[in-house]
Amino acid sequence: MSEKKRTTIVLFSGDYDKAMAAYIIANGAAAYDHEVTIFHTFWGLNALRKEEPLTLNKGFLEKMFAKMMPRGADKMGLSKMNFAGMGPKMIKQVMKKHNAMTLPQLIEMAQEQEVKLIACTMTMDLLGLHQEELLNGVEYAGVAAYLAEAGNGNVNLFI
Amino acid sequence: MSEKKRTTIVLFSGDYDKAMAAYIIANGAAAYDHEVTIFHTFWGLNALRKEEPLTLNKGFLEKMFAKMMPRGADKMGLSKMNFAGMGPKMIKQVMKKHNAMTLPQLIEMAQEQEVKLIACTMTMDLLGLHQEELLNGVEYAGVAAYLAEAGNGNVNLFI
Amino acid sequence: MSEKKRTTIVLFSGDYDKAMAAYIIANGAAAYDHEVTIFHTFWGLNALRKEEPLTLNKGFLEKMFAKMMPRGADKMGLSKMNFAGMGPKMIKQVMKKHNAMTLPQLIEMAQEQEVKLIACTMTMDLLGLHQEELLNGVEYAGVAAYLAEAGNGNVNLFI
Repeated sequence: MSEKKRTTIVLFSGDYDKAMAAYIIANGAAAYDHEVTIFHTFWGLNALRKEEPLTLNKGFLEKMFAKMMPRGADKMGLSKMNFAGMGPKMIKQVMKKHNAMTLPQLIEMAQEQEVKLIACTMTMDLLGLHQEELLNGVEYAGVAAYLAEAGNGNVNLFI
Repeated sequence: MSEKKRTTIVLFSGDYDKAMAAYIIANGAAAYDHEVTIFHTFWGLNALRKEEPLTLNKGFLEKMFAKMMPRGADKMGLSKMNFAGMGPKMIKQVMKKHNAMTLPQLIEMAQEQEVKLIACTMTMDLLGLHQEELLNGVEYAGVAAYLAEAGNGNVNLFI
Repeated sequence: MSEKKRTTIVLFSGDYDKAMAAYIIANGAAAYDHEVTIFHTFWGLNALRKEEPLTLNKGFLEKMFAKMMPRGADKMGLSKMNFAGMGPKMIKQVMKKHNAMTLPQLIEMAQEQEVKLIACTMTMDLLGLHQEELLNGVEYAGVAAYLAEAGNGNVNLFI
């Protein structure tokens, strides 16, 4: 009879470490039987990009954004001690040593655990991202959908 | 009979994109009939600064902070890809193209929707900001007021 | 008869100003009789490091992290206007002038008020931090412990 707990995360950040934190909490919450949603907006959308570039018809600014933003979770930088890419290499090496899951693996696990991954359509428009560029299984929605879930959420985080 | 939902956002960040996210969520929540409060602290206070400089009697450090911090929402930088100010220009150009609301417009809309905009008096003291420098209609309070609202909040975010 | 309110903060950030905000909210909430937990993960763990270096048996990467990360709350930088360390000095000078509490004092006060300070064991492993390096009185736990508290929390923040 008791309702499920609900965890709703806004992933705004495009940093590897912050996205890791978001997905670790999301996977943990799903394992404890929460209903979990990650709402990706702004730079957080980069975590959902496919690695392969697509040739899409884009305007100049959209092409610039597409070029400058990391293509997928594995390419993202760190929020601290990025050191022109050396930081992420160190972190990934140390994660390998400790058998910790990488961000792409954490995202895959989240999809297997039925964490709802939503991409914010308004910021996709702004940054010129198309649905074909994002991972399969992602849902598309706006701030209204986010608020509907968060309004009933037990754990609401902005990361 | 049912009580209104309550959304309470701490805006700590002084980044244009993060402040946009905060105000988009706030305006969305107000449209869905939540009672909404944005508590501006630290660098988030800059979103509330008026554009015109005032000649106020300030100490040396306060003058330094006043000079170095962006004067108002329109002057804020990006959390990512700021590129010495090129990033904000690109974002604003792309926003114009998509008819998206700018941050100053989002703040105005929030005030029209009766979102409560609070400035944290403790950090105003630290950064040497005076009430005359901030937008009209802003309220002034401390962490106790924030906690009173957040303690009954449905959606609490730190941005 | 009424249950205590509960405030649960994830401190991910290693910035002096963000950690200050976290501890000000935590101390405020404790003063208003909330049960308060700060869960330190990733760079937020640095706030809990003791100032004195210990000679511990660490691998190469762990030594690198230990060197590069700030040793304790007093050594942390700012999220904005760090200016190679000038920003923190300015903030600390202005805090002194206003008799504001420093971060180490805020942490001490939190411990006196029985705020539960938790260090995330998973990220301690990743960054090569040992329990001997962290403040006395800190508890050690993982994401499951965090979720158990946050799931019943009134105010949940990610900082």
